[in-house]
Amino acid sequence: MEVTTWREALRLLLDHIEPLPTAAVELVDARGRFLQIDALATADAPAFDVAMMDGYAVGDEASVGQELRIAGTSLPGDPPAEALQVGTTRRIFTGAPTPNLTARVIPQELIQETENEAIRILEVPEARLIRPRGSEARDGDTILAKGQHLGPAELAILASLGIAKPRVGGKPRIAHLVLGGELIDPAQTPVHGQIRDSNSILIHALVEEWNAQIVFHQRLDDDSQKIVRALDESRSLADMILISGGASVGEHDHARSSLAKVGFKFLFEKTDLRPGRPAAAAVHKNQTAICLPGNPLAHLVVFHLLVRPALSKLSGATIFGNAFHSARLAQCLTGKANSRHTFWPAVLLPDGLHPLRFLTSGDVLSLVGANALISLEPGAPLPGTGENVSFLPFNMP
Amino acid sequence: MEVTTWREALRLLLDHIEPLPTAAVELVDARGRFLQIDALATADAPAFDVAMMDGYAVGDEASVGQELRIAGTSLPGDPPAEALQVGTTRRIFTGAPTPNLTARVIPQELIQETENEAIRILEVPEARLIRPRGSEARDGDTILAKGQHLGPAELAILASLGIAKPRVGGKPRIAHLVLGGELIDPAQTPVHGQIRDSNSILIHALVEEWNAQIVFHQRLDDDSQKIVRALDESRSLADMILISGGASVGEHDHARSSLAKVGFKFLFEKTDLRPGRPAAAAVHKNQTAICLPGNPLAHLVVFHLLVRPALSKLSGATIFGNAFHSARLAQCLTGKANSRHTFWPAVLLPDGLHPLRFLTSGDVLSLVGANALISLEPGAPLPGTGENVSFLPFNMP
Repeated sequence: MEVTTWREALRLLLDHIEPLPTAAVELVDARGRFLQIDALATADAPAFDVAMMDGYAVGDEASVGQELRIAGTSLPGDPPAEALQVGTTRRIFTGAPTPNLTARVIPQELIQETENEAIRILEVPEARLIRPRGSEARDGDTILAKGQHLGPAELAILASLGIAKPRVGGKPRIAHLVLGGELIDPAQTPVHGQIRDSNSILIHALVEEWNAQIVFHQRLDDDSQKIVRALDESRSLADMILISGGASVGEHDHARSSLAKVGFKFLFEKTDLRPGRPAAAAVHKNQTAICLPGNPLAHLVVFHLLVRPALSKLSGATIFGNAFHSARLAQCLTGKANSRHTFWPAVLLPDGLHPLRFLTSGDVLSLVGANALISLEPGAPLPGTGENVSFLPFNMP
Repeated sequence: MEVTTWREALRLLLDHIEPLPTAAVELVDARGRFLQIDALATADAPAFDVAMMDGYAVGDEASVGQELRIAGTSLPGDPPAEALQVGTTRRIFTGAPTPNLTARVIPQELIQETENEAIRILEVPEARLIRPRGSEARDGDTILAKGQHLGPAELAILASLGIAKPRVGGKPRIAHLVLGGELIDPAQTPVHGQIRDSNSILIHALVEEWNAQIVFHQRLDDDSQKIVRALDESRSLADMILISGGASVGEHDHARSSLAKVGFKFLFEKTDLRPGRPAAAAVHKNQTAICLPGNPLAHLVVFHLLVRPALSKLSGATIFGNAFHSARLAQCLTGKANSRHTFWPAVLLPDGLHPLRFLTSGDVLSLVGANALISLEPGAPLPGTGENVSFLPFNMP
């Protein structure tokens, strides 16, 4: 079986995937989804020149010691007042439109109130303290582009633009088949040789974190007929099928042969991922199936490197590669260079990346707090403590 | 009004807050919540010495060129086989228990199969390729400690430990009151002076991201009687009350006086946050109310610096301070040193922190993609491009 580099595997996968149909949803339902329109400013922002501090609007001639009569007050939301007359000022609050002919705003701390509704200027600051009309955005500017991930700030932007029911990409429906006769429900007590299934909840939670939902889930032993039936049902309900291999020998054989039986063609069958070598993907019409090797660490790696970008493309993202960041390695890695592309689980803390135990069997117990995968390119020597290393964070879109 | 540093404000706030009652929930409902028990290993992991690769289990005497008879096969999940007899080996697969007296596993690539169900050893690798019993965890070890945030990996760990209904901290119920007669629903078209309310969806989304839920929401003009009624209703429904000030002058006056009317005492009324100076918190019995100044950037700052740790403590976290990370400043900041503690919105990208526009009015349009707040200590000179700066990421627990 040919080995496909994970980058090539990702390209093959993304080439096949088409974004799901879009939908217009309420803002409260849009969190985590991807915008499918360009959101434009519908007016200059701010709409007028506005004061940046509480104070007094004054004309060009304002100077220290000058006395000015207070000719009214401007509040945020007021229309701009009439032009300033010579010898007058206007009390103005942060965000309020400045009257015509305002040269600057004098903060209230730099004036002295005198009798007869007047002020005396104590100091004229260098800054004008005026935020000019349109300095934030011009009418028609693109504020959020198609494909933008919608977090709290972007939802607030849509609200302020009056886009109360934005058109967003779909929320992928996932079928998850978990293969392996030795697997039992976590609530059960294993008898000899049985193992509690931890991949079902792992995939459930990962999928939910990435704007998708499990619509079908089945734990199956290695009975090929049952797997074919489950695949048929999955295809009718889901946009993508994820198959977790059991921990048994030749774990993907049943998955692979069953996928082939129902008409799937393989895009790749083996990758250079470590762990995650047996990761595979197959397609049939507009459906994609991804096989994840059974160990939980390989699940995390294959999910973040391959599944997550695939979900993003289904969801209508326009950027769905993996953005690798870099940080200081706070503790040493043990082992030696490997010819495969190694992804090492780690906890990113303020002082840098703390690698977790990396065991070939990928025991789940060592993954406490994992929030990053350190990337070690094929053949690269292991970096030392204090060196900068490349990593993929788990929780950035 | 006295200025309280935000660190002192946070301490006052956390001192008052008691964790909510705990609950036992299904794993699928536990994502994002905080564990309220210590989760212990109930057996050694692995339970036996196991093979780290597919190959052959051999005794101490194994040497290059030696021929050994294959005396059976061990699969993962099998009980450990009888002790190896001299002159024999056992076919063994990754994760399978090694027979007694196994000294090492010879990978299948380093043997040659001979006739009569036997093998010849071509090479004896340095590594034993055996993962010893208990090397992952010993029976009784604490795997997850009380207070642990439950993400996908931690849920998988609970499943593998057989904790199918973990006891977790509560999910805070939040009442959100939005004050300001000028605010309208985002779906409406503003007439002169009106502003679309973007803080409601901002807080809704932030609260959901941090394991809490909005149970009461009301947009109110500055009618003190209505505010008192809304506060009364909020107190009966919610664990915490958030009050967004309007954009109008003296925005918190109504919030403050109404809170006082219904019996709340202020912990602090003014902070050194920039933006966010007028942030305030008040308490009454086991209820906490936090006032957020109206501008959306101040909302983000006060939420991440004060509200988020408060929610974490309510939710049963044991670590709820703010973990500041550091990264390279990829673009310059403009402005000058300020005597308040400034938090500057930024986008963390692979090449470092890209500051967003920082305007005193805190217009929401400039917050696209914000995922971090750069921290500039009071009086500190502005750092230059390429310097390392301290920042608070939005999305790490």
